[in-house]
Amino acid sequence: MKSITLIGSGNLATHLGLTLKKQGFIITQVFSRKKNNALQLAKKLNSEYTDNINHIISSDLMILCIKDDAIKNILTKINTENIIHTSGTLHINIFQKKFKNYGIIYPLQTFNKNIKTNFSDVPICVEANNVEFQKKLIKLSNKISNKVYEINSSQRKKIHLAAVFACNFSNHMYAIAEEILKEENIDKSILLPLIKETAKKVEKKNAKEVQTGPAIRKDTETIKEHLNSLNNLSYKKIYKLISSNILQNE
Amino acid sequence: MKSITLIGSGNLATHLGLTLKKQGFIITQVFSRKKNNALQLAKKLNSEYTDNINHIISSDLMILCIKDDAIKNILTKINTENIIHTSGTLHINIFQKKFKNYGIIYPLQTFNKNIKTNFSDVPICVEANNVEFQKKLIKLSNKISNKVYEINSSQRKKIHLAAVFACNFSNHMYAIAEEILKEENIDKSILLPLIKETAKKVEKKNAKEVQTGPAIRKDTETIKEHLNSLNNLSYKKIYKLISSNILQNE
Repeated sequence: MKSITLIGSGNLATHLGLTLKKQGFIITQVFSRKKNNALQLAKKLNSEYTDNINHIISSDLMILCIKDDAIKNILTKINTENIIHTSGTLHINIFQKKFKNYGIIYPLQTFNKNIKTNFSDVPICVEANNVEFQKKLIKLSNKISNKVYEINSSQRKKIHLAAVFACNFSNHMYAIAEEILKEENIDKSILLPLIKETAKKVEKKNAKEVQTGPAIRKDTETIKEHLNSLNNLSYKKIYKLISSNILQNE
Repeated sequence: MKSITLIGSGNLATHLGLTLKKQGFIITQVFSRKKNNALQLAKKLNSEYTDNINHIISSDLMILCIKDDAIKNILTKINTENIIHTSGTLHINIFQKKFKNYGIIYPLQTFNKNIKTNFSDVPICVEANNVEFQKKLIKLSNKISNKVYEINSSQRKKIHLAAVFACNFSNHMYAIAEEILKEENIDKSILLPLIKETAKKVEKKNAKEVQTGPAIRKDTETIKEHLNSLNNLSYKKIYKLISSNILQNE
């Protein structure tokens, strides 16, 4: 598998496309419904581009890097031999045996077009509909990452769910923290060493073992004061719910 | 200020005591209500120890590293000239002018006895009841950290509140993620690059700008599936509440 058709032009398509190109793969075409996005990424990848679904050209491997609901739709309109998606949630059965070889490479990472990511550290979860294709996908994945896992659809779904908590929800906790500081005109940089250390601690210990703060200390006085000083009702709810859950899980 | 009496023997007392000792301060005595804890830390600090509140000996500076509610209690029983606490929440007025010089050094970090912490990276928030003492506390803080801030009690309280979200609550998100993986017998190490990257992203961008995941994508299909696959009712509630808040804040 040398030539690749990239369906999508978002954060993941950008990072994956650039990484594959760097490893010697040829991105023959980028498809995006948004012409300008397709053009922008195609430029970076030195590839063709199209915004017309009927003009998608087959290659050694077609990689879908688009929203889950868009995948279901596009599959009815595509004909190719080797195809994979990159979703954490969608079951391998989504391909419905319409294709000869199909599967998934799911990179377990949070991507942002404007932030560089070292792909070699990104865990990649691989699944395929047959052994031969599985081997090919593993080979491809090994070229871009040192952390390749064979993971079936139901495991992958759970991993994605865990990732939502570990990444998306903890990022939202950072966002709330930043907003609280902003109200006091305190620069968020004061929190960065704490955020870094919190993430670092779980490399060596389980998160549950190293929990700190008012909830785990059963410091009801501080919890009360914090709740009083939160004006945002949603933040108050979140504070209450997580604090009680920390205590419950102790 | 050269000699220090350390009140407490927990995570913070341990890290702070060891760091001060390393910088040439002499820890004259460790007090803890738990005799064995006092002994253990005193050994490391090469200091005296006591578990009797009436045997606490004054020194150039008394540092309270104990729970907030314990501080209120102990202050009625202590006589000394220079005293500080290390709490994120307690107002400077807690000292009630009983002492000549009083204040706070609040290290904004999560400490665990069993995990090494580089104190020089730890932001320290300093407050004192007079300019002279403030200068002394800043001088002391500069010896153990490169990040010293002058922060008043109301700002400190907000910083502590922000820290609960950024540290304690995101750590709980890690804990939930670990549990979800455990149910599937998947090693949590697969999540570590994601956790690291999520924490790293906010060094350069605001958390709100780099939010990813089903909620911000308005991927209701995935959100539904995730909620269905969560057996733990509290986790279901947390998932719902944070997801709707991510959408709300968009």
